[in-house]
Amino acid sequence: MEFTLVQKDLGSKARAGEITTDHGKIQTPIFMPVGTVASVKGVHQRELRDDINPDIILGNTYHLYLRPGTGILEKAGGLHKFMGWDRNILTDSGGYQVYSLSANRKIKEEGVKFKSHIDGSYHFFSPESVMEIQRTIGADIIMAFDECTPYPCDYNYAKRSMHMTHRWLDRCITHLNKVPEKYDYKQTLFPIVQGSTYTDLRKQSAEYIANAGALGNAIGGLSVGEPAEEMYAMTDVVCEILPEDKPRYLMGVGTPINILENIALGVDMFDCVMPTRNARNGMLFTSQGTINIKNKKWEDDFSPIDPAGITFVDTEYSKAYLRHLFAANEYLGKQIATIHNLGFYLWLTRTAREKIVEGTFTEWKNRMVKQMDNRL
Amino acid sequence: MEFTLVQKDLGSKARAGEITTDHGKIQTPIFMPVGTVASVKGVHQRELRDDINPDIILGNTYHLYLRPGTGILEKAGGLHKFMGWDRNILTDSGGYQVYSLSANRKIKEEGVKFKSHIDGSYHFFSPESVMEIQRTIGADIIMAFDECTPYPCDYNYAKRSMHMTHRWLDRCITHLNKVPEKYDYKQTLFPIVQGSTYTDLRKQSAEYIANAGALGNAIGGLSVGEPAEEMYAMTDVVCEILPEDKPRYLMGVGTPINILENIALGVDMFDCVMPTRNARNGMLFTSQGTINIKNKKWEDDFSPIDPAGITFVDTEYSKAYLRHLFAANEYLGKQIATIHNLGFYLWLTRTAREKIVEGTFTEWKNRMVKQMDNRL
Repeated sequence: MEFTLVQKDLGSKARAGEITTDHGKIQTPIFMPVGTVASVKGVHQRELRDDINPDIILGNTYHLYLRPGTGILEKAGGLHKFMGWDRNILTDSGGYQVYSLSANRKIKEEGVKFKSHIDGSYHFFSPESVMEIQRTIGADIIMAFDECTPYPCDYNYAKRSMHMTHRWLDRCITHLNKVPEKYDYKQTLFPIVQGSTYTDLRKQSAEYIANAGALGNAIGGLSVGEPAEEMYAMTDVVCEILPEDKPRYLMGVGTPINILENIALGVDMFDCVMPTRNARNGMLFTSQGTINIKNKKWEDDFSPIDPAGITFVDTEYSKAYLRHLFAANEYLGKQIATIHNLGFYLWLTRTAREKIVEGTFTEWKNRMVKQMDNRL
Repeated sequence: MEFTLVQKDLGSKARAGEITTDHGKIQTPIFMPVGTVASVKGVHQRELRDDINPDIILGNTYHLYLRPGTGILEKAGGLHKFMGWDRNILTDSGGYQVYSLSANRKIKEEGVKFKSHIDGSYHFFSPESVMEIQRTIGADIIMAFDECTPYPCDYNYAKRSMHMTHRWLDRCITHLNKVPEKYDYKQTLFPIVQGSTYTDLRKQSAEYIANAGALGNAIGGLSVGEPAEEMYAMTDVVCEILPEDKPRYLMGVGTPINILENIALGVDMFDCVMPTRNARNGMLFTSQGTINIKNKKWEDDFSPIDPAGITFVDTEYSKAYLRHLFAANEYLGKQIATIHNLGFYLWLTRTAREKIVEGTFTEWKNRMVKQMDNRL
């Protein structure tokens, strides 16, 4: 994997970059649509490729490990071939999903014992096993196994957890070196900064992670319920320490506003279920603000979903029609809203990149942040 | 509406024809995908148009009347504009849906009182009101209000019901003449033959319907549980009587085999929820037979869904991937299976037409009927 810093913004810490892997180029800043179990919910691969057009998508190790399982993925020749996606893929490490299981997992130094949400069977994830699983899934970028702490988090717990995440990182690196790649392309490990919302811990963690010398770095443990200002403060502290010549990935973030603010602080990569999950609940993100398409006010509004026309759904369907599909519980409604929202998120990061390159990012970002805060 | 008989098959009663309406040409035999509430479930209009490619789709009056309602449809300028479909649409009369409500409806000479499946509210459909509703929905082909009798059906009930359906037809015609079209294109009323599985009633009904002099005619009350042989016998009797120079529409039929057998008896138009509903349950129709994609045997079968490659889904996705999507309850699985099945049904009627024109229909039909009877 290579990373080229194309342009630094003068008015902020935003950067435009380009990552190159064996599955092609990723222009940053980038939003990665979430394809949890080898599918971006409700979206055909053709639409993902041609209409939404991201350079990279995300898969979830926890879910893929349970279904279809590593046996099938290995027989298929990896996740790319299994799902028919020939661009980049990143997989998380399962750390966040295991953390989300709360009552159904037990975290120890050795690793995490957890109960499957599907059939209640018990499983064990360790830094070593997660590296092996990710070798089999075969994503281009794979994540270190970490503990994602909740918010709020007791200082001492956050500190102990952070140190364990660091020790787990060392185990990940050691083990990954022993397990060769399974397919004919390279995989790159990103370590993860933790430290909850404590500045001193975040600094300490960022230094530890920076010293690991990985080709890219991630910030975890944010967007778990803390106020946006705390998130931005932590991102800022961490981005100051993480090397400038490596891509920075902020995990699980966020709203369109969160994304622009974090780009301004030096983040290059994002993922979040928000555009897809909220779409399925009838919430549309647009450059003019958010729309709850279920509202009766759209019942006889025959104007296009979004006059911006980023994807085909925006102009092929009217608000009234989309509102009807949600009222009638027709799945096509969720499909339309998902394509709209993902198209919008990709437009947002693509446009942020253009503005950085043009040198007009900050002005544009400040205007967009205001506009997008509206409820239409 | 015009109908041209292009070619009659020598070995059977099959015909190739062409219907022309203000929304374009319909090449027959044709299968009409069902878009119950202004959406073919899980299929974008773009996919319907470009990949599945039917000349006509079907909407359900009962469902559209309840949601979005005639007020919204009228404001939209009719169903075509509301849903963004500029080819032909046919709407049923609500007779079949009302019949399906069984306990929640009361049929009288005046019409049918029924309870909405959505909110339990009471409504009343009469031949007159259904003509007005269909004027507002604005389909190109609209159906007379009828009673669809169950199977088995007592002879006397079937006879009384048939006569009422005939009287309702007269009321439909009279009332339709008084209610002008609402949009800038013509609508054509198709009357419906009833008579259950009684040859004498079917003959009597076919004669009554033929005498009404409509531009197209339909056969209702079949595919309600009777053996296929009884269905074919009734179709045969009715097609002998319905005028040759008008299209014949067999309502709610059926399996791919049913469709070919009925084409051989002189039917031109079909609709059925089977390809879409069965798709959502993981059943795929192919020219080699049916596939239950949920079966474990497909778990590691990485071959294309259908090597025939009728629509993009057939070759872009593997059986193993589709099986995984069903196992993981990912909606994309239903979307893929729906496009596959509709693509196959349209291929089937399109190919039947080609074979009729070529003069090789019967031989091909007999071979297909055998092949499609397999379970793969």
